[in-house]
Amino acid sequence: MTDATIKRLSASESDFNSSLARLLAWDDSVDHQVNESVRHILHEVKTRGDQAVLEFTEKFDRLKVGSVSNLEMDQSRLQQALETIPRDQRVALEKAAERIRDYHERQSQKSWQYEDEDGTVLGQKVTPLDRAGLYVPGGKAAYPSSVLMNAIPAKVAGVSEVIMVVPAPEGVVNDLVLASAAIAGVDRVFTVGGAQAVGALAYGTETIPAVDKIVGPGNIFVATAKREVFGVVGIDMIAGPSEILVICDGKTNPDWIAMDLFSQAEHDEQAQSILVSPDAEFLDAVEASINKLLPTMERADIIRTSMTDRAALIQVADLKEAAVVSNRIAPEHLELSVEDPEAMLEHIRHAGAIFMGRYTAEALGDYCAGPNHVLPTSGTARFSSPLGVYDFQKRSSIIGFSAEGADRMGRVASVLARGEGLTAHARSAEYRIKE
Amino acid sequence: MTDATIKRLSASESDFNSSLARLLAWDDSVDHQVNESVRHILHEVKTRGDQAVLEFTEKFDRLKVGSVSNLEMDQSRLQQALETIPRDQRVALEKAAERIRDYHERQSQKSWQYEDEDGTVLGQKVTPLDRAGLYVPGGKAAYPSSVLMNAIPAKVAGVSEVIMVVPAPEGVVNDLVLASAAIAGVDRVFTVGGAQAVGALAYGTETIPAVDKIVGPGNIFVATAKREVFGVVGIDMIAGPSEILVICDGKTNPDWIAMDLFSQAEHDEQAQSILVSPDAEFLDAVEASINKLLPTMERADIIRTSMTDRAALIQVADLKEAAVVSNRIAPEHLELSVEDPEAMLEHIRHAGAIFMGRYTAEALGDYCAGPNHVLPTSGTARFSSPLGVYDFQKRSSIIGFSAEGADRMGRVASVLARGEGLTAHARSAEYRIKE
Repeated sequence: MTDATIKRLSASESDFNSSLARLLAWDDSVDHQVNESVRHILHEVKTRGDQAVLEFTEKFDRLKVGSVSNLEMDQSRLQQALETIPRDQRVALEKAAERIRDYHERQSQKSWQYEDEDGTVLGQKVTPLDRAGLYVPGGKAAYPSSVLMNAIPAKVAGVSEVIMVVPAPEGVVNDLVLASAAIAGVDRVFTVGGAQAVGALAYGTETIPAVDKIVGPGNIFVATAKREVFGVVGIDMIAGPSEILVICDGKTNPDWIAMDLFSQAEHDEQAQSILVSPDAEFLDAVEASINKLLPTMERADIIRTSMTDRAALIQVADLKEAAVVSNRIAPEHLELSVEDPEAMLEHIRHAGAIFMGRYTAEALGDYCAGPNHVLPTSGTARFSSPLGVYDFQKRSSIIGFSAEGADRMGRVASVLARGEGLTAHARSAEYRIKE
Repeated sequence: MTDATIKRLSASESDFNSSLARLLAWDDSVDHQVNESVRHILHEVKTRGDQAVLEFTEKFDRLKVGSVSNLEMDQSRLQQALETIPRDQRVALEKAAERIRDYHERQSQKSWQYEDEDGTVLGQKVTPLDRAGLYVPGGKAAYPSSVLMNAIPAKVAGVSEVIMVVPAPEGVVNDLVLASAAIAGVDRVFTVGGAQAVGALAYGTETIPAVDKIVGPGNIFVATAKREVFGVVGIDMIAGPSEILVICDGKTNPDWIAMDLFSQAEHDEQAQSILVSPDAEFLDAVEASINKLLPTMERADIIRTSMTDRAALIQVADLKEAAVVSNRIAPEHLELSVEDPEAMLEHIRHAGAIFMGRYTAEALGDYCAGPNHVLPTSGTARFSSPLGVYDFQKRSSIIGFSAEGADRMGRVASVLARGEGLTAHARSAEYRIKE
């Protein structure tokens, strides 16, 4: 077994900014062949509905059935899965669901309204989406935790129908995924995957109802299809590779830190793990731990590639500079493995989720801390947020003028509308002005 | 002058659903030539920075300057505009700004945190974006109200730098727009427009700083460029043509309703105005008002085309059915011109902004009621919200485990991670479990 060769950067080097930019660069350019193929699938599903879904399911998942209704799994099948899975798994999923629900309930937004001195009523009405679609990857990578993280916020938001799609290659589905759907309260499940599933959720077919928003992770076909149907329906973010940034003061067990970096790297070869510390000897110690632990890992090959291609150990002058580097990166996951994480927190401006202190392994957040594990990647934490209840609610402005208020504000609107040359606007307001 | 010929639908007809679908259909397919041209411009700006901005500005705006810093307007120029515009316009803009600020301050979200029985800290940290870019159209359609509606929520959110770009064809800028920028507290203004302005804001140049999110309306080049840079930066929605749906019980002055419909139609030929009423005679009366008032309108040609091509008068059985039709359409603007708008409100599930009662002309909301006039179009109110303070803030999850909590929840995470075959995750959690 060869060691992983990990890049070493120092914030004091004159070319640090450009080295960092190179480290973070990630090519998300669109694959034109995938694009063409996805457009074709979406067009077919949009125009031919169920029939197209059946054909693509037979072609891509080698699953042949007579009608799309045969692809629906009823609630009794989900319950059966829940009763089939090992008891410790069930208990863990239920505990995780409870914590996720508890956290997300605090995100729920309420309608509000107020009246000004003229009797004018202004407000904001918050309503849930009618229907949400949840894409769940099938096959080898089955992530039951992802079902909980996507479906629970939707149900907490008050979405009346959560529809899950999951591919079942050759008819195989993962019982942990179905059990999670039962626990999360998913309303309907169709074993359809790929771009055809996204198309069915966006446009609706005879059997699969159209939804208002599609969330959940998927491969390049799924991600491309989501990008394509955006506007017809809402979508969550288009995720890049997962990343972790660990800031450590050098006093955490280096094995812990190495394993935290691995927990990101094992996702896939493109995942990115970065450690920032003011302590050069600690960086050496973690590198030694990495090479000691690597051969013991089940996914050693993926981890080695990820660590070699995309990881970095960055030396900084102090923790203050570590925060500056972190804000520059705007990481998806940020571990503050330091003595006083609270003190550092105020300097952190951008991050998807912040893991405070030596005991808070990122893996805890992935599963059961409560907050969502669907987080903004590739620096998009500069402007976006974790998936949350707010993604399944929307707002309507409420405006109610009394005759008084319409008289007073109609005069203002009239001046502004005439200033913009919009005279129908002006006259519409002027009709409500008293003589 | 010919009358406008307006479509008449009835919800009782057997083919109403398909007629309604045809009425609402709007082709937003991408123009490939525009796409190519926009990609070229973005690539040039990304790779050649200021120089490319100068070239495109000379080419498209016929404005030749020596360096991009010559395109920056300093604060004294904005103040000068504020002092130059007519006094009634200034007072109206300041009044509108005050109301917009007051309303949006109620949207601001606060960070929160709680501790569970194990001493585990969970929370959500809310932070403003560092920098926002505001695109403002120049030339003939100058909308100062749009500057207020886009910039004020950003400043209320706490964005430290709001950078406005506005094309100045042949060097001409609109003083109302500059005055609005002064009132709204815009930090920097560059007279650059088109896809080159979007590129400069997304990637940054030597002179124009990169922002985290770009908002504001623009032509097809601007909209295409925004869609293209989405992911590098955040963007607001991609707006379709503006629409209004008026629900009337038949007891509002038909001239008022006709003018409310016109106030939407005058925006452009593709704008859509729909009236829904249970009163067939009232629909006739409004049609008569439309044809009576049309010749008196300054933008009669635009209004006639819009009303003929895209408007409709829809008869329904009762107000309950009107709400069903409205939810189906999910309109950008919804006027409830009825006796008891509060009673109707609870049946309304999707709308960008809801205008309550006969006195609340939509035009009041466009300018100075307080709520934002940037609203979801083309049925996207099913899943999206008016522009707001929340668009300029983002959230980071906070997770802090005590040694106790890491022990207890580490066991749960370990079971789940092993269930998903992610052993680095499991071991990272297990390190924190007590022996």
